[in-house]
Amino acid sequence: MTSYFNELITSDKNQTVKLAKALLTQARQRKKLGLTVLEGTHLIDAALRSDYPFVQILVAESAQTHSEVQQILTRLPTYTPILTLSDALYTSIRSLGTGIDIMAIVTIPTPRLAAIHEDCLILNDVQDSGNVGTLLRTAAAVGINTILCTSATAQAWSPKTLRAGMGAQFALTVYEGLSNADILDYVKVPLFATSSHTDTLIYEHDLRAPMAWIMGHEGQGVCAELMQCATPIALPQPNGQESLNVAIAGSLCLYETLRQRQYS
Amino acid sequence: MTSYFNELITSDKNQTVKLAKALLTQARQRKKLGLTVLEGTHLIDAALRSDYPFVQILVAESAQTHSEVQQILTRLPTYTPILTLSDALYTSIRSLGTGIDIMAIVTIPTPRLAAIHEDCLILNDVQDSGNVGTLLRTAAAVGINTILCTSATAQAWSPKTLRAGMGAQFALTVYEGLSNADILDYVKVPLFATSSHTDTLIYEHDLRAPMAWIMGHEGQGVCAELMQCATPIALPQPNGQESLNVAIAGSLCLYETLRQRQYS
Repeated sequence: MTSYFNELITSDKNQTVKLAKALLTQARQRKKLGLTVLEGTHLIDAALRSDYPFVQILVAESAQTHSEVQQILTRLPTYTPILTLSDALYTSIRSLGTGIDIMAIVTIPTPRLAAIHEDCLILNDVQDSGNVGTLLRTAAAVGINTILCTSATAQAWSPKTLRAGMGAQFALTVYEGLSNADILDYVKVPLFATSSHTDTLIYEHDLRAPMAWIMGHEGQGVCAELMQCATPIALPQPNGQESLNVAIAGSLCLYETLRQRQYS
Repeated sequence: MTSYFNELITSDKNQTVKLAKALLTQARQRKKLGLTVLEGTHLIDAALRSDYPFVQILVAESAQTHSEVQQILTRLPTYTPILTLSDALYTSIRSLGTGIDIMAIVTIPTPRLAAIHEDCLILNDVQDSGNVGTLLRTAAAVGINTILCTSATAQAWSPKTLRAGMGAQFALTVYEGLSNADILDYVKVPLFATSSHTDTLIYEHDLRAPMAWIMGHEGQGVCAELMQCATPIALPQPNGQESLNVAIAGSLCLYETLRQRQYS
């Protein structure tokens, strides 16, 4: 076993520890610094498979000898700084429950928006990190690689969204902080959105050409400005319940698009 | 405005307050007592629409005059006990964030299992309350009314699951705490489950006859004992990502079943 470890950090005054803690807990700091934290071996593994650059690795002392941690460390570029924290200190900053105690500080990509002519998913002020992460995961599964988020959408790279996305973020290009005007200016494919004000079911629409699905706020749905530029479609709800969860509705739309193109 | 309120409770030693707090925080107590708590006007309204019986209502003092609270109170059976809590006390026990501070203690239904010949959804040790609630919500939307949960599945009537289900629980018959043997003995329709060990896509299966969908544990999937009695089906994942979130996978299966029956 190779040793990658230097001194042991035990103080919460350590600058990197303070940084990791701030990034794990404060959306504002993530946004200001353009950094986030990947917690656990699964996300770090996904990042490594995508050749994603790491700023810094933090490992709990007792996790150093774990085989999955060792395996990750052998794959890191040699210049990656690795910090070892006492177990008590690591536990005091982590946001996940018990697991393999390793985290990575990484930069949040900021792709430059240009005209979009391919399939994409627009998240219009989706509030819940779990919903955003789940939608990214489904988009990655069906091969939609372009995601556009309006400014009130939950952060795509927050620890919670990363967890729900299970690493899908690394397979996607995610544009964040967009205005409605940005969406309408740059998206060159037709917009579609679910709506309770139409009876035309999704199955009656031809979804085979490149298109943009818009998913909206959990309570209010897609905003009026985008909705009036979109084709409204209905998902069937024979039992007359209230609307579906937005991650479910979005996934049904993405999969029906896939089905029409490849399996019908 | 009618006044429904008697004395104001300010002490956390009050027996009903202690009970509500225990039910909101302890799965064990909910199971032992067969009671749970509905928080917020939305769930209470859904319960009232289903003529669901209430054991007790708790309202924060400042919420008494809220129009939605007044509207709920006029619809309660006259014998329903209503307790008013000081705002500080209410805030100290609630599990939701800020909202309209009203909660109801209700009994958890315990339907008696009998042979099942209709469509149903089997939750085989699904761990996450959010996933269970979301699956119940989708099941209610497509009109599948029978839910069977094996014993390690997250509680269908916990405050978190109720929140994710948005009141779907009141429209469903949910059997909990079942063994694999119970499932195999009582479910008389064919079993289907998603699997990564088959290439036969869901679109290639005929899903028009009554059937049971099994959704499994987030990490391990459906257990071997049930899987070997089920027809494995694949959901397409052209981009080769890891498996979908179980609530997404389940909802895609339920909606493809609906599509084949009504819209193809």
